[in-house]
Parts: sequence; C-alpha cells; structure tokens
Amino acid sequence: MDETGLWAELAALAERAVGLSDPNPRVACRLVLPDGRAYDGHTQAAGQAHAEVMALRAAQAAGADVRGATAYVTLEPCSHHGRTPPCCDALVAAGVARVVVAAIDPNPRVSGQGVARLRAAGVAVDVLPADHPAAQATRELNIGFWQRMRHGRPWVRMKAAASLDGVTALPNGVSQWITSEAARTDGHAWRRRAGAVLTGIGTVRSDDPRLDVRLVPTVRQPLRVVLDAGLDIDPAARILQPPGQVLIYTAAADQGAEKRAALAALGVGVIDRPGPPKTAGGPPKVDLAAVLADLAAREVNELHIESGAKLNASWWRAGLVDELLLYLAPRLLGAGVGLADLGPLTRLEDGWPLTFASVQAVGPDLRVLARVPGRAPF
Amino acid sequence: MDETGLWAELAALAERAVGLSDPNPRVACRLVLPDGRAYDGHTQAAGQAHAEVMALRAAQAAGADVRGATAYVTLEPCSHHGRTPPCCDALVAAGVARVVVAAIDPNPRVSGQGVARLRAAGVAVDVLPADHPAAQATRELNIGFWQRMRHGRPWVRMKAAASLDGVTALPNGVSQWITSEAARTDGHAWRRRAGAVLTGIGTVRSDDPRLDVRLVPTVRQPLRVVLDAGLDIDPAARILQPPGQVLIYTAAADQGAEKRAALAALGVGVIDRPGPPKTAGGPPKVDLAAVLADLAAREVNELHIESGAKLNASWWRAGLVDELLLYLAPRLLGAGVGLADLGPLTRLEDGWPLTFASVQAVGPDLRVLARVPGRAPF
Repeated sequence: MDETGLWAELAALAERAVGLSDPNPRVACRLVLPDGRAYDGHTQAAGQAHAEVMALRAAQAAGADVRGATAYVTLEPCSHHGRTPPCCDALVAAGVARVVVAAIDPNPRVSGQGVARLRAAGVAVDVLPADHPAAQATRELNIGFWQRMRHGRPWVRMKAAASLDGVTALPNGVSQWITSEAARTDGHAWRRRAGAVLTGIGTVRSDDPRLDVRLVPTVRQPLRVVLDAGLDIDPAARILQPPGQVLIYTAAADQGAEKRAALAALGVGVIDRPGPPKTAGGPPKVDLAAVLADLAAREVNELHIESGAKLNASWWRAGLVDELLLYLAPRLLGAGVGLADLGPLTRLEDGWPLTFASVQAVGPDLRVLARVPGRAPF
Repeated sequence: MDETGLWAELAALAERAVGLSDPNPRVACRLVLPDGRAYDGHTQAAGQAHAEVMALRAAQAAGADVRGATAYVTLEPCSHHGRTPPCCDALVAAGVARVVVAAIDPNPRVSGQGVARLRAAGVAVDVLPADHPAAQATRELNIGFWQRMRHGRPWVRMKAAASLDGVTALPNGVSQWITSEAARTDGHAWRRRAGAVLTGIGTVRSDDPRLDVRLVPTVRQPLRVVLDAGLDIDPAARILQPPGQVLIYTAAADQGAEKRAALAALGVGVIDRPGPPKTAGGPPKVDLAAVLADLAAREVNELHIESGAKLNASWWRAGLVDELLLYLAPRLLGAGVGLADLGPLTRLEDGWPLTFASVQAVGPDLRVLARVPGRAPF
C-alpha cells in the first residue's frame, strides 16, 4: 500500500475513537513488520490502552515478532505517565525500529518529547510536515484537544436546526421537528463526539430535553451541563436523570441551600460562576468564559451547545463560539424564533462573520458547518 | 468518442444558448459524417438559425458532404414553420441518414411530429429513453420551455440573498451587500437566463434597482417587470431606463391616464390585471396567476423574481413559486427582514415545503437551489 492509502486508512481508524477515548485524543497506529504484515490499533477509553499499545497487542496476539517494525501513528506517541505508561517506552521495548508521526502532540507534557525519547532510545523517527493531509486530518479530528491544550478551553460548537428562512421555532414555540429524523440522528452523533453538551435553564423549562446520546450507539455519555443563573431548575427535569453526569453552573452564590441539597442527592454538581449582570442592577449572570475554563479543567475537549436564542446570543456576543453546526430544513416557515437573539444592527459589518467549512446533505436536510475565522487552534 | 462523452459535450454546447436563444429552447446538434468528421451547432437568437442548421452550415463551410451523416440533437428537430423553416426539412434536404434525438419537444406543434416527418422522409430516427442523462439534461436546461409548453406559464424562480440566520435586510432596511460580489455576479448569470426579471413597487421605491444584466456579458436583456397595483411608480425610476423592455402590471383599472401617458412615452407597457384585494374593502391587488399567463403568452420561459418580503410572501401564498434560488452568506445578523413575510404559523406542517436540488459554493457564500415538490413539468 502506498503511504497516501495508509494514512487515509489510519484517519478512518482514528475516527473510531470518537465517543470512546475522550478526553484522550483520537489516534490510530499501524505496525508494519519487515515481512509486510501489519497490525492496527486505535485509542481506547481513558485509562485503557492507547493506539500504539493496541497495535502491539494485536501483533502479539497473532504471534508476530515486531522487532524491526515501522510504526505509523497519527499523533506523537506519549512520553509521560498519564493514566497509562508512556507509549514511547512500549514501542522501544518491543524493538520497533522506526516511527512515522503524522502530527506532534499539542500537549505541553508531550510536545516533541515523545519524538526525543524515541530517538534517544535509538528509534528512527520521521515527522510529517504540518501541511501533510494526515497531519491536517489528525488536527481536525482532535480540534477540541488542540483547543484545550493550546488555549485552555474547549472547542465550542453551537448546534441549531432551522428552516431555510432561519426559523428555529414558530412564534408559539413549536419546534419539534423542523428537521428530519436523519438530521436529528446526525445531531446525536455530534453530541457523542463532544465532551459535554450544554443548554440553558430556558430550554430546560420550555422543552425539558434529556440531551443525552440516544439515536446513535455509544459507550459513554457526554457530561451534560445546564447554565442556570438563579438555580431555578426543577429537580424533576429530565436532564437531571440518568444516564451520565450533570453539572449546573449558577450565579446564585450561596443561595438555594435546599435546592443544592436536592441536587446533590441526585448526584448533580452545582458550581458557582457568577459574572456581571446583563443590565445594570439586574441579577448576576453566569460567567461564560469561566464556565469554559472550568470545563477545560474537567478535560472537556469539545463543548456542544444546544440552547435557545437568548443564551445562544450571549455566547456569540461574548465571542466564545468557535463553530456553528446548523441543520437547514428545506421549507419556509416565515416567522418565529431565530438562531440567536442578536442585533438589531444598523450596519452589516457589525454582524458575526463565519466561513463555511463543509456542507452536506443529511436525509432531506442540509448540514452546514461554519467556523468563526481565525479560531482554529492550529 | 463514446456516446456518453458526446452527449456531455452537446449538453455543454446547448448551455451556450442560455441568454441567447430565448424564447426558443437551448439545443445543440452534432453532425457526424461517415468518415468520422464532426460539426457542431447550437440555437442562435430567436428568428436566427436553430442548432441543426448551424451544424449543417459548419459542415458546408468546411466543404464537407453530409450525405449519410448521423445527426445527434438534444431536442427533437422542429417540424413547423415558426420564425424559421423546419429543421427536419433541412436535415432531409442535406441527405442526413440518421438522427438521434435526446428528448421529444414538449411544444404541441412539434411533439413527435418532427420524428414522424423525418421517418416519412426515409431518415432513421432513434429517440433516447426518457431517463437517459442526455434527455434529463435537455429538460433541466429547458425547464421553463417545458413549463410554458405543458402548463401555459413560466417556470417561476425566486431569488433571495440572506445571512445564514435568514436575514435579508437589517431592521433599518440596509441590505447592500449581505452576500459577496461573486454571489451577485452569479445572480446576474441567473437573471440572464430568465425571459423576464420581476420585482414589486415596494422594492422599486426602497432600492430603486435596475434589475438588468450588468455583471456578466449578455447579448440580450430580459424583459423587466414591475408589479404596481396602484400605478404609483415614479417615471424617473431606474428600472424604467434602458437597456431593454419594461412592463408594469397594475390593478388600477383605468386610472392614472397621465401616468400612463408618461410611461407610454418611455416605451413602458402598462397592463391591467386586477385581482381581489388582500383584505376585504382594501385596494385591488395585481392578479399573480394572470401575470404568469400573460408572461407565458409573451413567450417568457423562466421568470426570475427579486422582490421584497411582502410580495415574495404573496407569490408563496398563491402557490406560484416553483424554485427558490437562495444565496446564503456566512454570517449572523440576528434580526431584520426575512425572505418572505409568511406566517405566523401555529403548526410546522403548514410551512412551505421544498426539496434541495443543488448546493454550491459561490465565492465565500453558498448558493442553494430548492424546488417545490412535484412542480417540475416533466
């Protein structure tokens, strides 16, 4: 196989770690033995084996001797003791002769040190240039990991579903369902890849969503997060039920001891992150940047926001959205609630600029991925 | 060349008749001589040569003898004396032995009779099956011709430009420009392919557009049409200036003799097509279906609508839009004027359904073509 085909296969293999390996990056490894036989692996759940170890185990299970093999890895092998021992050491111990690395790890505890450790042990290491398609694929697949390692916050993806004329709900609030089942299923696949799914108390009250991953199979549930400045949530809200963990960010300081106790009994975490009020003299709001910092500290790589037009607008106004994941249904609805309660503007240049990253048909709908320019962390 | 390649080349050649041949269909012809030499032609301006005659002339100019040749034509050769003599007769007179027809002409004065006339003259004729890609390409390229021939009205295409959140103008009316120069240029290419470009008096008053074809080269200007129920147009409006013809449809019955005289002096036609008022007791509105019938009688195949949210909504409510041509700019504007003043609805199923026909990047923007289901005239 030529190297282009090899890297394309490894990119596909690394994608199988989506919804599995978080907060670890999605990585694939192929060991190619001197006789041409090849063994693959990808990152498992956190605390379990990384891609390199999976490939070594596959070779071992087949009774193959990997001495003198070349390891192709989509991300630099780790050099530190995290939840597992360093992959570098496993490769060295197995007698791997050469390692080809698609991208250097952005984790400051690894970055470049994995390569150095391998070379120090006498292993030949090649690193692909940064503009190699395999390097780009690794960064794209791990954009949230890069964002957290480089900037200390998750990659923030806002999901919305609208009619072609921009209506996300009718004036009476009806929004189920503007897009197709295919689009909703696809939306769950995007939830699955996120470290956390976030909404606001307004959406909890009006739609009582669960926000878990149901329409696609998954081995883990993302953390679910509610922004609830006044700690007004009903402990019976569906989002507080299993499966998975739930966090509530409030601006309510030390108020609501009873509610806090009820939520603690449900296993729901409550975190105070008060920020300035929206209008002078108004109630304090949750500090959105502080929420991102806290989620990054909790190792959330990708944050998936599904909230209403008001909270959506707050995220945009704060300049904290990195990417818009928008499902457009082929119909006109004329009037209703928009994607975000922004404006009114008087000048077009005051709008929120994006660039289209990809457009794809999903069932009868369109899925549009648009990015805020200059926000990608690489 | 295999036939797939031949038909693909002829489809591209037929497209060169866009902006040229209206109201005649866009057709291409290739004469393949027994010795393998080939000569092409496509429909010229109305009253000038059709594709078959252009190909015959090309052969003649090269001194080639076309006796025994095979003619490949994207549409059935005409059998009647229209603005030009029948192409069937020209093919027979030249000694063409065989004709391969991609699609039968929907014109009732031709449909099937061209084939019959050729066969009666001893020419072998093959007609491609209706689901052949070349047959489909002919119908798509001539969707307006099909619509007019089959249903006595033009194919109605509504063009709009909006931000990704559906804003076509800010609350203060500012809309220049939400989309890019590339998208506006592309929009002029779509104007060029239309037989008529239509707007309403509201847009004439607020934007004073010219609505001619300027950003792409053209040999003809589409008819420009203004719906102006009260005949309120200012004779100094830019849309009334050259180049090209202008028609105004009113519901003003016999009022406005002075205005009518002023418009007549400018060469502008005024046509009364009164319909029922929007609300009981209100002023009469222009009858949109009657406008379409009149435009079809004037041989308009494709009607390109660029109007404001109010008139747009009237077209949708009347069920007379066939296709939406929507340019989406990668930005959020939050609040403002929408694509069409439809709704408010209380049920999603009361929306106006579409299906996506194509999506393409145009500069930084997206061009979305969406069709009303079941409206294609074939």
